[in-house]
This record gives sequence, C-alpha cells and structure tokens, in this order.
Amino acid sequence: MPQIQASLSSIATMDTSDPLANKREAFQLPKNKIYLDGNSLGPMTFAAKLRAEKVLAEQWGDDLITSWNKHQWIDLPEIIGEKIAPLIGAAEGQVICCDSVSINLFKVLAAALSLNTKRTKILSQSDNFPTDLYMTQGLQNLLGRERCELVTVTEDSIIESLDDSIAVLMLTQVNFRTGRVLDIQSITQAAKEKGILVIWDLAHSAGAIPVKLDEWQVDFAVGCGYKYFNGGPGAPAFVYVAKRHLCDLEQPLSGWMGHRSPFDFSPDYEKPSSIKQFLCGTPSVISMSVLDESLNLFKDISIEMIRQKSLALTDLFIQKVKQNDCLNGLKLITPLEHHLRGSQIAYCHNDAYAICQALIAQGIIADFRAPNILRFGFSPLFLRFKDIEDSVSSLVDVIENKKYLQEEFNKRLAVT
Amino acid sequence: MPQIQASLSSIATMDTSDPLANKREAFQLPKNKIYLDGNSLGPMTFAAKLRAEKVLAEQWGDDLITSWNKHQWIDLPEIIGEKIAPLIGAAEGQVICCDSVSINLFKVLAAALSLNTKRTKILSQSDNFPTDLYMTQGLQNLLGRERCELVTVTEDSIIESLDDSIAVLMLTQVNFRTGRVLDIQSITQAAKEKGILVIWDLAHSAGAIPVKLDEWQVDFAVGCGYKYFNGGPGAPAFVYVAKRHLCDLEQPLSGWMGHRSPFDFSPDYEKPSSIKQFLCGTPSVISMSVLDESLNLFKDISIEMIRQKSLALTDLFIQKVKQNDCLNGLKLITPLEHHLRGSQIAYCHNDAYAICQALIAQGIIADFRAPNILRFGFSPLFLRFKDIEDSVSSLVDVIENKKYLQEEFNKRLAVT
Repeated sequence: MPQIQASLSSIATMDTSDPLANKREAFQLPKNKIYLDGNSLGPMTFAAKLRAEKVLAEQWGDDLITSWNKHQWIDLPEIIGEKIAPLIGAAEGQVICCDSVSINLFKVLAAALSLNTKRTKILSQSDNFPTDLYMTQGLQNLLGRERCELVTVTEDSIIESLDDSIAVLMLTQVNFRTGRVLDIQSITQAAKEKGILVIWDLAHSAGAIPVKLDEWQVDFAVGCGYKYFNGGPGAPAFVYVAKRHLCDLEQPLSGWMGHRSPFDFSPDYEKPSSIKQFLCGTPSVISMSVLDESLNLFKDISIEMIRQKSLALTDLFIQKVKQNDCLNGLKLITPLEHHLRGSQIAYCHNDAYAICQALIAQGIIADFRAPNILRFGFSPLFLRFKDIEDSVSSLVDVIENKKYLQEEFNKRLAVT
Repeated sequence: MPQIQASLSSIATMDTSDPLANKREAFQLPKNKIYLDGNSLGPMTFAAKLRAEKVLAEQWGDDLITSWNKHQWIDLPEIIGEKIAPLIGAAEGQVICCDSVSINLFKVLAAALSLNTKRTKILSQSDNFPTDLYMTQGLQNLLGRERCELVTVTEDSIIESLDDSIAVLMLTQVNFRTGRVLDIQSITQAAKEKGILVIWDLAHSAGAIPVKLDEWQVDFAVGCGYKYFNGGPGAPAFVYVAKRHLCDLEQPLSGWMGHRSPFDFSPDYEKPSSIKQFLCGTPSVISMSVLDESLNLFKDISIEMIRQKSLALTDLFIQKVKQNDCLNGLKLITPLEHHLRGSQIAYCHNDAYAICQALIAQGIIADFRAPNILRFGFSPLFLRFKDIEDSVSSLVDVIENKKYLQEEFNKRLAVT
C-alpha cells in the first residue's frame, strides 16, 4: 500500500488539485452529512431532477403518446446503452438499458446455456450478491438439474474449479461485502480455455472501475444504474452481450419491445439481430430518462480518472483509520492491494450495527451488512478528501467515546 | 344498443350531470386537443407530477438511502398492490406491483405450469396482444414443447377448445384491436371444469371495466399501470395471484426482493408465503411513486361508475358516427352489445392511417393499428361528452373534405 502522509494541509491540496473536484457541484447533497453510500444509491444531480420535471410536465403532460417518437422515448434503452458502452469497454451495438439486474441475469444465464447446450453447470462464487444466486436457482428449478445446476465455490477456488463440465461462469467483479475485486481478464481467459462462457456482474463496479469487456473477450455482463451511475432509486439496469453471440443465442424473456418490428403486432416472436432482442416489456420512461441524464456527467471524464481518485480516497481512509489506535478493533476485510480493492471498504466489528447507527446519527452515512460488517462506499464524483478526514474523525469520536453504547442512543434505536 | 338521442343541449346536460365530471380537473391535459388515447397512455395528474418532484427533491435528493424505510420505498410494491386490489375484485394480500406486464406474464405462466405439471399446453387467443404470445413462446423455447406448448385459437373457439390436455388458459379480457370483451366469469368456470388454470391479462381493461377476480375464482391475472391507471409512460405493472396458490407454486424470476428476508443476504433463495414472492429486482421507485399517486384518483369512486360513463361515451360516439352518412365507409369492428364492448372503439378503413394522421393534425389524438384500424379510446376520468361530439365533427371534416388525401398533408407526412 502506498504511504500517503496526509496532513491537514496536504488534504486541502489533494482537494484543490483534484481534477474531478468540480463534478461535486452537479449534485444535490444533503447538508451537514457525508454520504459514504454512493455505492448503494448514488445521489441526485440537479440535471437529473430538471430532466424528470421536463419529462413529466412537457413530454408526458403535454405531448402524451406522441412523445414515444417526438421525444425519443422509444430509443432510450439504446441511447443509454451507448452512453454506458464506452464506460465498460464495449464497442457500439452491444449494450442496452432495460429491466433490473436480476431480470437481466436471467436473460443472460438462459442465453449462455442456449449457446453451450452440451454442458449444464453454472459456476459462481458462494459469496456472490444473493440475487445472482437466487436467479440461477430460479432457472435451475425451472429447467431441472439435468439441464442447469448451480455450483458455488469460494473466490479463491474459482480458477481451479474450471473444467469441461461447466457451461457458464457467472461472477461479480466486486464483492458486495468485502469490496474485493476479481480479475476479469485472467479469469475470463482461463474460462475460455475450458470452453466456458462468462457472465460478469458489474453491479458493484460499473462507473467506478475501468473494464475492457471487448478486449478481454467477455461474453455477457450486467450492471446497475443506481449505484455509481447515480440513475435514481431502482433505476433500470443494463446488459452487455458480445456481438459474436447475438445471432445464435436465445433468451426467453422475449417481450414485444424485443421483437424485430414491435409495431407490426405480429403473432410470432421474431428475434432482431441487434442487442434490442434483450428488451422485454415497455420501458419505464421516467426512471430511464433520469438515468440517461445522470450519465451525461461521464461525458468529459474517463473511468481511469475516477479509479485514480477512488484509490486515493480509500487509501486515505485506511491510513487515517490505522493512525488512530482507538480504531484497532475494526478489522479491515478489504484487500490493501490496489488491484484487489473496489471503491468500497469494509471492516468487521462485533458492534458494527450500533457503530453504523451512531455514525449515521452524526451525519456520516455508512452502511451495515449482516452479521458484523461496517461498509463505506467512496463515490469519487462528489466526495472530497476533506470528507474522508471528517468521516474518520467521527468514527474516532463514536468509538473512543463509546457513543455507540450510550443508553440514550440505544433507546432512540429502539423506538425508530 | 340503447338509443341515445343526443342533441347539443342533451350533451351539455350529460356533462353537467356526470358524477365523474370533477375528476377532469385533476389532469394536466394538452390545450386544444382531445385525447382519445388514454387506453394506450393515460394522461398525467397534477398530483402525480408533484409526487415525482417530492420523491426527487426531498426523498432521493435529501434523504438518499434512508428513504427506503423513511419514505416507505420498500413498501411501494405492496402499497400499490393494495390500492389496485379493490379495483379488480381482490381481497388483500394477492396483488403486487412490479416489473412489466410481459415479465409478470412469464412469472404466472411458469407458476401455473408448476401447479399443473401433468399437462403441457397453454391455450390462448390467436389475436391476443403480441407480448402475451411472445412471452409464452419464450417459455416454450426454453422448456421445450414436451413441457410447454402454445396453442392459439380464435376468440369464438375458446370454450370448445378447452380439454384435458390444456394446463393453462391465458387470455386478454379486452382485445387490443377490436375492443371486444371476453366473459371472464363463464370462461374461467368452463376452464375450471376441465382442470385448467386461468390467467387473465387485464392490460386493456383494469381501471375501466369491473372484474371480480376472487368471486370468479380466477387463478392469476396481470395488468398495466400506464393505461387507465394513468401511472406514467412505462409505469410498473401488477400481478394478481389467488391466495390458494401462493404456498404451492414456484415462479422462476426469484430475485432478492422476492426473498423471505432480503436483507439477510443469505445464499439460498427462500420463498415467502406472501405475494411478495412475485417481486424480483429492486423496484423502480420514481416510476412506482407516480403510479401510487395516480391511483389515489380512484379512492372515492367505483369502477362501476367509470364503466357506466365509458359505455355512455362509446354509445354516443357510435351513434354520432352512424348519424353522418359521410362516415359510412368506416366499418365498426367493436361489438354493439354493452357486455361485449370495452372502453375503446375500432373502425376499419382502407385509409385508416392517413385518417388518423389527419385527425391528430386537427388535435384529435386517436391511434392506428395495422393494417387498417382506426382506434379510439375513452378514458372516463377526463373525457367530456362534449369531447365526443367535437371528435366526431373533426372526423366528419377530415373525411367529408377528404383532408386525409390532401397533397400538402401527404407531403408533410413524408417528411415527418
């Protein structure tokens, strides 16, 4: 880990020399709070709010049904897909915005099996985000184990578990609990050598960590609109499918918006040759418009810039925690190595839940993951280095003064 | 068909004595236009706009992640479900808001097959809304015909086609093209006698036609949030599942929001006993909030009142068209009998597309369905009887003066 000797003055310098510093102005941020949960729900930009108001008052309100063409509602899934594409290393025509991460996982799981019909196993990490496992279990129950069988292993055993019986490897790049990063490139390469198709879930990394899906020959990916892309609560998700698979695959959620010519209203589903075959029902226009607007923040910056600041933020946080002896009880479970660390940091502590609540009471919005994890997310587009310093100061106050144990606080907990 | 002798004065009387007349004030309606497309996209209420602004600025903007509990985001799917329940004759605990109609169809199709495993056929009407057929074809392709086979018949042949080989009958109550209504009660009864489970798609009727899902012993239903419920473009849909099936069924789109305890983040999917098992991914909060607010319009009125006005509106339209000899070329394909007529009317005409465009140019927003159908929707919460009269006057003008054939108009068509 690089040693940053951050004094008060150097922290001020880090903020003034931060090339992303001006992005903060784009956001409506709550006063007197430091938001370390942008990895869970990104905050709102003023532009997104204005866009939503426009979609409501002018588009839906005034132009009604004609807005589907007049305001390009019908094209939103593709427009958004093409905005996300360069942020995940995808050439055009391979990314589209639709439905939720869960639904999109089901589509790509079934699509991957349709391309690799002689094999049946889907390998995943046992500590994957639950919905990835649940959706696979749903497909397994529907198809029967003779056609689809979920197998899970620890993250350390992935490579050694790759063999000819595996049809699909489905992994999440950043572990939602530990913040550990898996190496997409090398794992994908190892899987391909065994004839395995690979699905990457970028829910906890898209918009924060550079990935090169095309270059690394990833087959499928899904990701989230409401975390680092700041697309609003429950924003629509996205799906990436490598062009080489679009012709041969079959995905079962073949709704009318994914038809070759939806407005022909013909009785038989016909697959388009494009990524639009991953659309299903009518898109949620208001939510999608908000995401579309939020993505404009990424127009003039690179994911590499974001990654650089993210690592500096997490470096500083880890260093500051380490400098305070009273924080010794916090056990870091996020890797120190940069290439293994996502844009979030997790500590174990027996009182993690109470500490998290006490921090929130002080205006430091962190979050808790059962059974004992205190999780901090570092979204580089609006966080300042000063925020890191202030957050660790609050953490020191909460722990040194045992504020998380105070009876009064616990009482307050009991009634909320 | 009841004869309404509507003179100018009696039309004014119909408007002044309309018990739903004051609902119109709730809507932002475009000036100098008559919107006969509420059956496709309901218009915006001022309350929905305000609600969206509040969700953005105050909830997402200020309270961020804490809004999931503080502002009950997490409960929206159930809250909305319970608002819809009385409007479709459902007791509590059986309706939930989620995803799209297409996705929900997939869930109930698979769920119904899981309850009726010895049979494989899914019977539907050949002229069903395409997405219903496409989603079934998607399931058929995934499972193979030996486990799931779509069979379609004309609407007149449904009853005679019910036999012991059929697992599931999936029908749409109101035909999207003709506006013809199928009799849910008698068809469901006939299907039950053959041991067939029944799915009703209420996309073109919920909020406009009274249905009694519980009383008629319907098994499953789905419906749309953005048509008569005015929930905004691409609003989330809903699903109804009879309580008697909740324990035994399996639905494959088992995402984390449909887990018994989503925030335990446990690795294995566990089905809750409630309707929440039909949730999948993270709900689209902004869109869902807009729908939630729009549904408040229905609080103090009954679907029966809406139905009564709907029939009066369509009666008047049909009568006025009939009174004008120049409209003889329009061939009505919507049934005249009240019990067979939905809240929309369709006419065939070789120049239907051009007529529709000419009407839109005059501010009468109707729509066209290939190959030759001119479709008018009658949403009783904001339409006045006066609007019907004015719409037919415009139709007379367009057809009598052959405005739809004007060269200049056609030129404009060509460039738009």
